[in-house]
Amino acid sequence: MPGQGALPAPFDCEIVAIGTELLLGQVVDTNSAWLGDRLAAAGIACYFQTKVGDNQPRIVAALEVALSRACAVICCGGLGPTPDDITREAIAEMMGVELVRDPGLEEMLARRFLGRDLPASNYKQADVPRGCSPVLPTMGTAPGLICPVGEKVIYAVPGVPAEMREMVERAVVPDLRQRSGVTATIRSRFLRVWGVPESKVAEIVGPRVQALEAVGNPTIAFLASATEGVRVRVTARAVLGGPEVSSPMNPVAAEELAGRMLDAEEANLRALLGDAVGGVDDEGLEVSLGRLLSLRGWHLAVAESLTGGMVASRLASVPGASHWFGGGVVAYTDAVKRGPLGVVADLVVSEQAAKEMAVGVARLTSVEVGLSVTGVAGPSLQEDQPVGTVFVGMCLPEDGQPGATQVTVAARLSLPGDRQLVRERAATSALDLVRRQLGRLGPRPA
Amino acid sequence: MPGQGALPAPFDCEIVAIGTELLLGQVVDTNSAWLGDRLAAAGIACYFQTKVGDNQPRIVAALEVALSRACAVICCGGLGPTPDDITREAIAEMMGVELVRDPGLEEMLARRFLGRDLPASNYKQADVPRGCSPVLPTMGTAPGLICPVGEKVIYAVPGVPAEMREMVERAVVPDLRQRSGVTATIRSRFLRVWGVPESKVAEIVGPRVQALEAVGNPTIAFLASATEGVRVRVTARAVLGGPEVSSPMNPVAAEELAGRMLDAEEANLRALLGDAVGGVDDEGLEVSLGRLLSLRGWHLAVAESLTGGMVASRLASVPGASHWFGGGVVAYTDAVKRGPLGVVADLVVSEQAAKEMAVGVARLTSVEVGLSVTGVAGPSLQEDQPVGTVFVGMCLPEDGQPGATQVTVAARLSLPGDRQLVRERAATSALDLVRRQLGRLGPRPA
Repeated sequence: MPGQGALPAPFDCEIVAIGTELLLGQVVDTNSAWLGDRLAAAGIACYFQTKVGDNQPRIVAALEVALSRACAVICCGGLGPTPDDITREAIAEMMGVELVRDPGLEEMLARRFLGRDLPASNYKQADVPRGCSPVLPTMGTAPGLICPVGEKVIYAVPGVPAEMREMVERAVVPDLRQRSGVTATIRSRFLRVWGVPESKVAEIVGPRVQALEAVGNPTIAFLASATEGVRVRVTARAVLGGPEVSSPMNPVAAEELAGRMLDAEEANLRALLGDAVGGVDDEGLEVSLGRLLSLRGWHLAVAESLTGGMVASRLASVPGASHWFGGGVVAYTDAVKRGPLGVVADLVVSEQAAKEMAVGVARLTSVEVGLSVTGVAGPSLQEDQPVGTVFVGMCLPEDGQPGATQVTVAARLSLPGDRQLVRERAATSALDLVRRQLGRLGPRPA
Repeated sequence: MPGQGALPAPFDCEIVAIGTELLLGQVVDTNSAWLGDRLAAAGIACYFQTKVGDNQPRIVAALEVALSRACAVICCGGLGPTPDDITREAIAEMMGVELVRDPGLEEMLARRFLGRDLPASNYKQADVPRGCSPVLPTMGTAPGLICPVGEKVIYAVPGVPAEMREMVERAVVPDLRQRSGVTATIRSRFLRVWGVPESKVAEIVGPRVQALEAVGNPTIAFLASATEGVRVRVTARAVLGGPEVSSPMNPVAAEELAGRMLDAEEANLRALLGDAVGGVDDEGLEVSLGRLLSLRGWHLAVAESLTGGMVASRLASVPGASHWFGGGVVAYTDAVKRGPLGVVADLVVSEQAAKEMAVGVARLTSVEVGLSVTGVAGPSLQEDQPVGTVFVGMCLPEDGQPGATQVTVAARLSLPGDRQLVRERAATSALDLVRRQLGRLGPRPA
């Protein structure tokens, strides 16, 4: 019963991903997933997402259905220069307007194509449905569009993920925020939690989540993955002119307020979760580890059995890894474990072998910190140990100083999952062991 | 103008993926991509795919839109036992019928839950909208549904990918084929092509593609990826009772005929593409390579610089890799290249260093075949070589017999892309070098 205390319907935005390759499953539509996450973080609801091929009548039909339901539509893809890029044409048809060439876009394209012999058809990217505003590209050559349709709006952004994300952040989200009347500045931060299952994280953080639910701001959510730890998302809203702040408040002050709320809540969560927290946001385990090693000027090397190079590969994937990563040995046969790595333990799947592998690889590669993984990924048992049995070993200077006596530590794990999952979990567990050990060394020696 | 020679509209099927986690981007919807590919292979068109959250009115709305456009709809997800699993309820509402408990399903669930103290709500999985047929699960506990709606049909399948795929293959595709009147048996095979860009593959195979287009069966399509080579798909149709075969033809004979057509076309394409063809279907480069090594009883080891364990990790990911993979060394510092690997070349990014690394790792790990990768992934130059410069080296027994003189080969590559792409392309190029060299050794020695 509107008018009797009913809340107004929330502002919502649908997504229409355009491309025949998406329907055929040749390309998985990750853009819609990213957009859905981004809209949620901006406080804008998204109830439907549609995929449609490079076919003008069907794109028009998809846009009509979406715009009949939602306040806004983001369509993604089909803005390139080739004949199957027809998003502009479809939007113009749906709006019942013609395409007009935008002189600004034409000039921009001419500058970018300077000296290249491109067909005139490339200039179709300068066409804009009458009444719409172009969004200049900063990365590729495909301009975006903002198309008002009555009280509603259609946005068109490129399908290339990096171009799409940049344009959405720069032009679409701010415009949506303004149209939606969402006056809050919303910021999120992820804490990356390692080595603790989601249920345990929920138990530890539960009372804090409940306390916050009473207030409603900031909020906390969990997101677990099989091998990438648990992400704890803190979302803070600073409302322009709202009760939290003196009104009117400028957007910069709102950003700062939201940032301070995130800082405070991060401190609360770190106090609860201790050294299970690695980095924030995109800082994976490898990056946290690299930071800890760089702090002491140490290098790490890794000896791997079942993970077969996966740990080394993850470490080497970090730009600048050569400042703290020395290399490693993949010991897929006992001969390699016993030869170059110098393992003398009777069993190669054992705590003792894990320690010897860590010491051996550190010696062989002349680094301060050695890490090792040995175990049974399956499909069959090894040395009578069941699939999922993994030993992780590590050696490092005893008092945190190179040249000091070496200490070794090892841990036995029972990891669930199939061969691939056991291997990925073993790699993550090994990296987390080093992260925690280094974190416990305390501040950097003077 | 229907009736004046117009073709009937093709039978089409839409996909509705159900789950709030899909809209929020917490889970990427790979099910729809898989279904789109599967429908295409079965000769059934798919023009729209929709994602909707766990909200009954919105699921009903999505189903109504989809069924107003298409002949059939597959909905995926929301068939579990928890309160947010409401696909059954939504289908019943959309059809205007009630849910009735199916005794067969109830019995099946009781058997599966035997001895476990499960809440009665779990039996909601035995509910079926009146007039619909259940599809018994073989993997999980979630039954599927086949729901006739007038001349059209809605299928419901579980959202767990393995359960979904099994049920679609077993129950949905055969039912769709029957309803659609597609009487052909359609089979596809992928040839995996390595080390040749898509444009070159298209040039080589072009005349054959054109010749086949005149006939229309089999057909050839290409699918390229940045790092996983080119896949050439051959699709053959054996029409039941069609002109190719004596009518009527049983499905088994049709399968066989389609298989023979694929065999013949694979032979044609292999003759054109030579040793650029590795395996078929899911046989990646690592698997092709493992097969060639196993044939001779040889082991391979790999020394990696910029790829940092990626090559080893790909090899170790193959189940049973220990039969032909020895291990390797990740040489991320010059000290490791010059120490354990024994590189003496002045420059570590050079053809000579690549050869020495391959010989060094084969010696260190006591295997017959050594492989190496050294180069510049970026972000900065190394030894004045530009980003993307990669040397791949290899050593193997000269006449194909262990104990014989060792030969070394090396190749210099200029790989495009950013740091991550250069690394992935370097890994793929290295694996392809070994595959081609081993393939040229000719048949296995007696």
